[in-house]
Amino acid sequence: MTNNNFHTIVIGAGSGGLTAAIGLAGLGKQVALVEAHHVGGDCTNAGCIPSKTLIHLARHFQKGDDPDEVFSQVVRKRNALRDQETQEVQQIENLTFIQGLARFSSPKSLIIDHGDQTRQISADNIIIATGSRARWLEIPGLPQERTLTNANFFELTEAPKHLVIAGAGIIALEMAFALNKLGTKITMFALDNRPVANAIPEVSQAIQAALDRAGIRTFYQTTAKSYDESNQSLLLQQGHQFITIPEVDQVLIAIGRVPNLEALNLEQAGVRVDPSIGVVVNTFGETKVKGIYAIGDITPTSAYTHSANAQGRRVVQRIAFPLLPLSRKEPLIPNATFSDPEIASVGLTQEALAKTWHPDLIKRIRVDFKTDTDRGYTDGVENGFIIVDAVRLTGRILHVTILGPRASEMISFFTLAINQRMSLYQLFRLVYPYPTYSSGILKVADLFIKETLTQIGKEFLAYLKYRLAKPG
Amino acid sequence: MTNNNFHTIVIGAGSGGLTAAIGLAGLGKQVALVEAHHVGGDCTNAGCIPSKTLIHLARHFQKGDDPDEVFSQVVRKRNALRDQETQEVQQIENLTFIQGLARFSSPKSLIIDHGDQTRQISADNIIIATGSRARWLEIPGLPQERTLTNANFFELTEAPKHLVIAGAGIIALEMAFALNKLGTKITMFALDNRPVANAIPEVSQAIQAALDRAGIRTFYQTTAKSYDESNQSLLLQQGHQFITIPEVDQVLIAIGRVPNLEALNLEQAGVRVDPSIGVVVNTFGETKVKGIYAIGDITPTSAYTHSANAQGRRVVQRIAFPLLPLSRKEPLIPNATFSDPEIASVGLTQEALAKTWHPDLIKRIRVDFKTDTDRGYTDGVENGFIIVDAVRLTGRILHVTILGPRASEMISFFTLAINQRMSLYQLFRLVYPYPTYSSGILKVADLFIKETLTQIGKEFLAYLKYRLAKPG
Repeated sequence: MTNNNFHTIVIGAGSGGLTAAIGLAGLGKQVALVEAHHVGGDCTNAGCIPSKTLIHLARHFQKGDDPDEVFSQVVRKRNALRDQETQEVQQIENLTFIQGLARFSSPKSLIIDHGDQTRQISADNIIIATGSRARWLEIPGLPQERTLTNANFFELTEAPKHLVIAGAGIIALEMAFALNKLGTKITMFALDNRPVANAIPEVSQAIQAALDRAGIRTFYQTTAKSYDESNQSLLLQQGHQFITIPEVDQVLIAIGRVPNLEALNLEQAGVRVDPSIGVVVNTFGETKVKGIYAIGDITPTSAYTHSANAQGRRVVQRIAFPLLPLSRKEPLIPNATFSDPEIASVGLTQEALAKTWHPDLIKRIRVDFKTDTDRGYTDGVENGFIIVDAVRLTGRILHVTILGPRASEMISFFTLAINQRMSLYQLFRLVYPYPTYSSGILKVADLFIKETLTQIGKEFLAYLKYRLAKPG
Repeated sequence: MTNNNFHTIVIGAGSGGLTAAIGLAGLGKQVALVEAHHVGGDCTNAGCIPSKTLIHLARHFQKGDDPDEVFSQVVRKRNALRDQETQEVQQIENLTFIQGLARFSSPKSLIIDHGDQTRQISADNIIIATGSRARWLEIPGLPQERTLTNANFFELTEAPKHLVIAGAGIIALEMAFALNKLGTKITMFALDNRPVANAIPEVSQAIQAALDRAGIRTFYQTTAKSYDESNQSLLLQQGHQFITIPEVDQVLIAIGRVPNLEALNLEQAGVRVDPSIGVVVNTFGETKVKGIYAIGDITPTSAYTHSANAQGRRVVQRIAFPLLPLSRKEPLIPNATFSDPEIASVGLTQEALAKTWHPDLIKRIRVDFKTDTDRGYTDGVENGFIIVDAVRLTGRILHVTILGPRASEMISFFTLAINQRMSLYQLFRLVYPYPTYSSGILKVADLFIKETLTQIGKEFLAYLKYRLAKPG
């Protein structure tokens, strides 16, 4: 007889869901893992894995290589990993894998639809990890076979000749730089007035310079009006101006993400949601309904695989060890974009900084790889920097953004430094291998200390004045 | 009238010497900086700068590109930086740049020879920073124009067709992998029985696999007997076996470094030296003679630009602020080799580990990028790992070696972690961006914790037993 009662049900076998399900099963809990599509979720199937494979192959693409072969290889590697993960998940002790679409019938039970079969399962704990999908953009006249989102982009078997990308965020930029290297002509347009609009302006400026140098055309504060199949042209509108983009063979829509809420029937669970932001949870991943948790893209607080994993690990601890103390504070979440150059940041956002500290208490230090590090010189880095926001006088690090060839690996140094509440004085005492980009960290510390010590009186008074001053 | 009395004289305008001279001049001290050859020393002229430029250009070398153009570009970039540094050093306030070869005439005075001119200068503090040169290897029959060391390697204007490299250390490997990418055939031989003989064996194994895959032939425990110009063949001897390497157009000698001691006339200063190891100093960079310091390659404790700089910074503090306390403990020195893959390590060497701790108190954790991280999978990394030696039970990190595409940037994370005396439990609580190589750090921590918690009783007893046990 099939068991339909579990300790925990996890809905969605993406990164977050897998982390939670495997974690709890490993601790001996009976777990059901429900997945409507592919094991691995967007990350394995239509996100990180195929995109990073593509970025890697594009970086090593040589004159005369076949770009279509790159796309085939991406699909092959993605499928191999998917098959492996699918097989592994079915062999984990204490874990029951259930294929199907889950909807709540009560706060503790779900109905799973799979083809014409239906099954009811229940558990004390239910973790929602259904993720997100691409926000849709309707472009009148654009046929379906020319419309891409991340969901079908990695089914391509041929490199587009001319790809138009709607959006200028993470996915848009990663694909723009990669396909550009394969010889695809790229045009981007976005509603925002700059690329990576949620980053500090210095990032947008440097990325724009890199886009310009790569020959990628960009249009900001721009919308798509229509597509004309007869001559394959896309009509854009920027203010009062109309721009015709000729010979467009595909359009990638990458203008944001929408949480996968609809199928869940959340009203039956008593979980109230705002469809535009997803399922709101506290720092432990709990909804307002006891026993119902949510992690990953379906929550407003996470948009990355690693943040979904981090949330998953916290929920595992919360469910398996309810009596163990768990810090109310969520861990620091760094982020990384694998554009060329890469972008990474950690610490307080500019909004959070402005809410917490008086602007005159913050000192911003910027070091440019090209002029301030020898590695930037040897490697001919045009755009790249480390920007650190630190407390005046004390040098405590609050926020770091790195832009450069290895930013995604360098940022963990600062995750650790901020986590340890370290100051730039302490980073000055470390030795960094030469010639690396990381030796720019020493330069940041050096600049801060020089600027502080040469006007120590002024810095001291400013610190006293603004330390307790109201922010803003 | 020319001033011949200084607060401090620095002999050698390489990385270490420049750091010390510029640092002291910036603090208002009258400094003389003496250089016999080029400003920038080996690093700028015949080391880090041209080698990293070459490595960078080789990485981006495309089929059909001209390898000779790469060599010209290396020389151009090197010369531009040298010119800039030469000009800058002559414009620094409080710093007198003196071209010439320095020799001691007493503990506080030097004679500077430049062409047929001679000048005597003196100071209370003299810092020896004359660096090192390539250890020589005599190969009977090998003509001078076919013999290279790092000193003339970056004067090449044409890529060799077939380069034989004597040695299998840092310089040998960096040049082997770079030139291989430019289409140069490479053969290596070394006295050691493995490449990077001073690293842990896992590194040698992985680097050997990378050499094999690149088609670089290697001969270990091998010496060079002679070169026959008539047919351009090099005769090697491995044990009782003789090996003829045909069509060799150049030989790069990279079998180690020798300190530049001879010209200094150190007996006049009263500084006693062992010519094979250089000038011995304490952790403050002081020799046995008061007021005489040594930093960089001339000391036995440093072989890197960043360690020379770190020593330089300590000597500046010691000289400028003699009353300020300076930790007796030298800072942790990480190291990095820019082979392909890169190698980096930090913390105790295996010898130091064995001297300090009982072997059963150490737990070694190894994570392979290919199988244990998604980034290793997407980027097709064949050889690459993070190896951490940590104290059993407590997880305190003692030594880390990373081998992989971005090892040189990743290592600073562990410099900071070891400096903060952190444990793997603490690293487990951090969030690492996905998919990066750094997410392997989480895997290291995860493995350690799982292995410890599943046998906590045994681990606890072992810790008690070996914590105070004699090493070895």
